[in-house]
Amino acid sequence: MSDGKLIAVGVGPGDPELMTLKAMRALEKADVIAYFAKAGHDGHARTIAAGHLRAGATELPLYYPVTTELPKCSTQYRAAIGDFYDGAAATIAAHLAAGRVVAVICVGDPLFYGSYMHLHARLASRFPPEIVAGVSGMAGCWSAAATPIAQGDDVFTVLPATLPEGELARRLADADAAVVMKVGRHLPKLRRALAASGRMARAIYVERGTTPDAKMMPLMSKLDDEAPYFAMVLVPGWEQQP
Amino acid sequence: MSDGKLIAVGVGPGDPELMTLKAMRALEKADVIAYFAKAGHDGHARTIAAGHLRAGATELPLYYPVTTELPKCSTQYRAAIGDFYDGAAATIAAHLAAGRVVAVICVGDPLFYGSYMHLHARLASRFPPEIVAGVSGMAGCWSAAATPIAQGDDVFTVLPATLPEGELARRLADADAAVVMKVGRHLPKLRRALAASGRMARAIYVERGTTPDAKMMPLMSKLDDEAPYFAMVLVPGWEQQP
Repeated sequence: MSDGKLIAVGVGPGDPELMTLKAMRALEKADVIAYFAKAGHDGHARTIAAGHLRAGATELPLYYPVTTELPKCSTQYRAAIGDFYDGAAATIAAHLAAGRVVAVICVGDPLFYGSYMHLHARLASRFPPEIVAGVSGMAGCWSAAATPIAQGDDVFTVLPATLPEGELARRLADADAAVVMKVGRHLPKLRRALAASGRMARAIYVERGTTPDAKMMPLMSKLDDEAPYFAMVLVPGWEQQP
Repeated sequence: MSDGKLIAVGVGPGDPELMTLKAMRALEKADVIAYFAKAGHDGHARTIAAGHLRAGATELPLYYPVTTELPKCSTQYRAAIGDFYDGAAATIAAHLAAGRVVAVICVGDPLFYGSYMHLHARLASRFPPEIVAGVSGMAGCWSAAATPIAQGDDVFTVLPATLPEGELARRLADADAAVVMKVGRHLPKLRRALAASGRMARAIYVERGTTPDAKMMPLMSKLDDEAPYFAMVLVPGWEQQP
């Protein structure tokens, strides 16, 4: 029997209409549809793709064993998550070895900060995958906010809000345009870094980008420091805009 | 008569299958379909969307008056291109004022280094636009090359190859992951900057990303310095990949 086919399918940032035609066709031909999710949840990718799942396809939810219970740098966390990815990859490999088409659906783009990459690292050499690029979460956010992000010879940078304050400030000052991800509990620190780098006045806060309950506002107008993990702050470039 | 509606429609990086459902629906309802192009050409966006243009829609090609004949920093170039964008915006404004739906189709994503942004700057305050996010050219390239680009707490940077050599080298060394755009005639300089920053061994050259005549290879395996303007060099991050 010949091997099946591994397809990593970006389903975009949240609005199901931002799925591509190629993503839909991949779902139509998949025997197995795999996705990451928190235990007890459907997972974002599953929710986005819900209207396009083929009746009769086998669903393979991959439930994270740990999320925020353990610090990410701990040996325990690393062992637990490494074992989890190993097991998930082995399950998918068995489906592929049995000749099945396996679509791993991914929020945003599969190879841009996505969990699929952990499967890719374990499977791609044995099962050369097809990658279906997706609209990224950040593109969903700047589009929802109708905010031109970068133009011409702008240098554009994506920063995790987890960086130390001084490092954030230095990198914000050094880029023409930036997106800061994983804002969550780091918002007070990020505010200080934006102020120190002179970028506060341009910063735009976006939460749940392309969904019906999206929130967006100039960061200076946001009065509290409540922010979900997936909130973003946009710092648009193109300062000579006419 | 009430105003029409301005819609900026990202049509993705090149493969028509990487258009979103939302982009298709925008084209179905558009009275006028506008796109930028070089004089005498259809333009990339028009080519990508060709299979989805509604019969009976008015096509509005916007032909650049100048491309490479004048240096971009010259007063002449700035005046010519400024007049061109003003005129294009005025033409579109007239359609909108007449109550029509105008879709401006854009390669990649409309607000990420796109020409649409010049119309947006001139029209958005009078005609609040809808933005349909698209798959970016760079996501098309790293997906075609099946190259995980950034993961976890990586800092990711987009650099134009037009930067001075020292600046390119400094920024390549300072980022975990990078995409260098507008490679063209800057390839020899970019090679030196990659070598100086210790990133050459990871660099991947991609030309015409998601099209049937795509070319991709480790940059070290590319023996000549011929590169089109839109070629990219990817420097993947995630160095602790298992």
